[in-house]
Amino acid sequence: SYSYSRVFSGIQPTGIPHLGNYLGALENWVALQNQYPSVLYSIVDLHSITQPQDPAQLRSNILDMAASLLACGIDPERAILFQQSQVSEHAELSWILGCLTSMPRLRHLPQWKMKSKQKNEGSVGLYTYPVLQAADILLYKSTHVPVGEDQVQHLELAQDLARIFNHRYGHLFPEPRALLSSTRKVKSLRDPSAKMSKSDPQSMATITITDSPDDIALKVRRAVTDFTSEVTFDPDTRPGVSNLVTIHATMAMISVEEAVSKARGLDTGEYKGLVTEAIVQRLTPIREEIQRLRSDPGHLEEVLRRGTRRARELAAPVLTEVRQRVGFS
Amino acid sequence: SYSYSRVFSGIQPTGIPHLGNYLGALENWVALQNQYPSVLYSIVDLHSITQPQDPAQLRSNILDMAASLLACGIDPERAILFQQSQVSEHAELSWILGCLTSMPRLRHLPQWKMKSKQKNEGSVGLYTYPVLQAADILLYKSTHVPVGEDQVQHLELAQDLARIFNHRYGHLFPEPRALLSSTRKVKSLRDPSAKMSKSDPQSMATITITDSPDDIALKVRRAVTDFTSEVTFDPDTRPGVSNLVTIHATMAMISVEEAVSKARGLDTGEYKGLVTEAIVQRLTPIREEIQRLRSDPGHLEEVLRRGTRRARELAAPVLTEVRQRVGFS
Repeated sequence: SYSYSRVFSGIQPTGIPHLGNYLGALENWVALQNQYPSVLYSIVDLHSITQPQDPAQLRSNILDMAASLLACGIDPERAILFQQSQVSEHAELSWILGCLTSMPRLRHLPQWKMKSKQKNEGSVGLYTYPVLQAADILLYKSTHVPVGEDQVQHLELAQDLARIFNHRYGHLFPEPRALLSSTRKVKSLRDPSAKMSKSDPQSMATITITDSPDDIALKVRRAVTDFTSEVTFDPDTRPGVSNLVTIHATMAMISVEEAVSKARGLDTGEYKGLVTEAIVQRLTPIREEIQRLRSDPGHLEEVLRRGTRRARELAAPVLTEVRQRVGFS
Repeated sequence: SYSYSRVFSGIQPTGIPHLGNYLGALENWVALQNQYPSVLYSIVDLHSITQPQDPAQLRSNILDMAASLLACGIDPERAILFQQSQVSEHAELSWILGCLTSMPRLRHLPQWKMKSKQKNEGSVGLYTYPVLQAADILLYKSTHVPVGEDQVQHLELAQDLARIFNHRYGHLFPEPRALLSSTRKVKSLRDPSAKMSKSDPQSMATITITDSPDDIALKVRRAVTDFTSEVTFDPDTRPGVSNLVTIHATMAMISVEEAVSKARGLDTGEYKGLVTEAIVQRLTPIREEIQRLRSDPGHLEEVLRRGTRRARELAAPVLTEVRQRVGFS
């Protein structure tokens, strides 16, 4: 147990988040910044280039993500919000940790298994991605890391590397603990067996948090349901309707039971109006704030620069200590 | 063709160099600093941790190597002499280049094939070692790299990565060219079929450049020759004697033919006295200078710090440009 708590999490700059990102991670981030005394959130652009990126698009996506995080409620006074590539200590620590990681250790981790198969063979960056993640976490001596289920194995590598480093060079890093959040999963509106995903080729499948009220209404109206008109919550047998209930409940900040009771007497078509209204009400101020922030990139860049300075203040002494332990200085 | 020439080379901090290092690489480094307008020599400690290192020994080895390089004639006014780990841009550029390198590309490179087999399985650092080497070179937009035969494939990777980066992000890096040096190979004194090597378990096999005159005399006296007493130069049929001729010639800075003619009338035993004398004469001022430098670690550290500052001045604008090209800023 440590005398302090520090949360670290990272998100790839994929541009404007969709509803699944918002409810799956960002809402939780906002809650954590109020629960923990020290919180770092990083836009992990070094991770994003493990897949090919268009440079201008990447730059724009970084600013979109920064604006979205702020608009969703990340408070840069409470949380250190920064861009990973601007803190060179991440890549340095990653190199050092890579020298403590055996090659086979990475072979079965989700990142490589999922993405290298799609493209048949991946880059060195893709293979070593989890080592950089471990460096992201350990660089700040983080104690807690909010993770989705698909990231548990990557966090285990960070824990292993903390142990291996501590064993070889003397205790320095806490073993970061997982904060498994109980957030509800948002599914594709077109195929409720799949997760809502930015890369979904069907534009109707995904609601982006900057979608206009008309777009939201259209997408919800087209959402796949079933042939039963009553609204019930049963994700296994009625995944489409249940996904709408999940979205409704989380957007309106009510329980699933309350959402179902509000649907009493409505058929699924009528209920979709209610769901649309809840989404629009929740997202409108966010959309407007993103537009406002995006119209002033200089301000966004300044927020990120301030975050970078604060992140470096924490990272630099840790890396100095690492360098001494390893024998570099 | 470029409007400038810049030489980059790195050496692992293995401690005090032996005669093979000195004649194989360091003499050439001294020559190059007088032939090229811009020269960088790096003590590559990030590379050395791809194999387990004792931290205190590593620190000591770094200072030993710095002292040895200076004593052998590296002039920190002409060449930028610096410690790799102190310039964080190396690890950063390595990450970016790793995202442009396919995993199979590294599988057959010498570093991995040689060292991972000894230990059965190597670290991520060992596997990705050649990518960091490419970053070392490209970070300074180097045009020329002195390489031994065993490093040719690694330089080819650096050339490939320069092309790949230039193709994807617009021309930035020259394709570095190999400077193949014609230095003579020094063999083990105990087994002239093998290279002289620091890791040789037989202490009599290797002459370290700080060996005392008595030690040098003893090692040469014990050097394996053959049953012919006349001194001739024929590396294939008389590797032991020929190795002594090579050492004699290079140490006395005369040709092999001159060395053989000086041996006329001597048997191999008597010739060993001549060889010892040539080595002692050449190494004595170097040994004394290393001792002097090593007695003042503060001065050595200041020389390295100055080198680090100068290296960063060259590296920082290149990495800034890389970050912009990639889309980070």
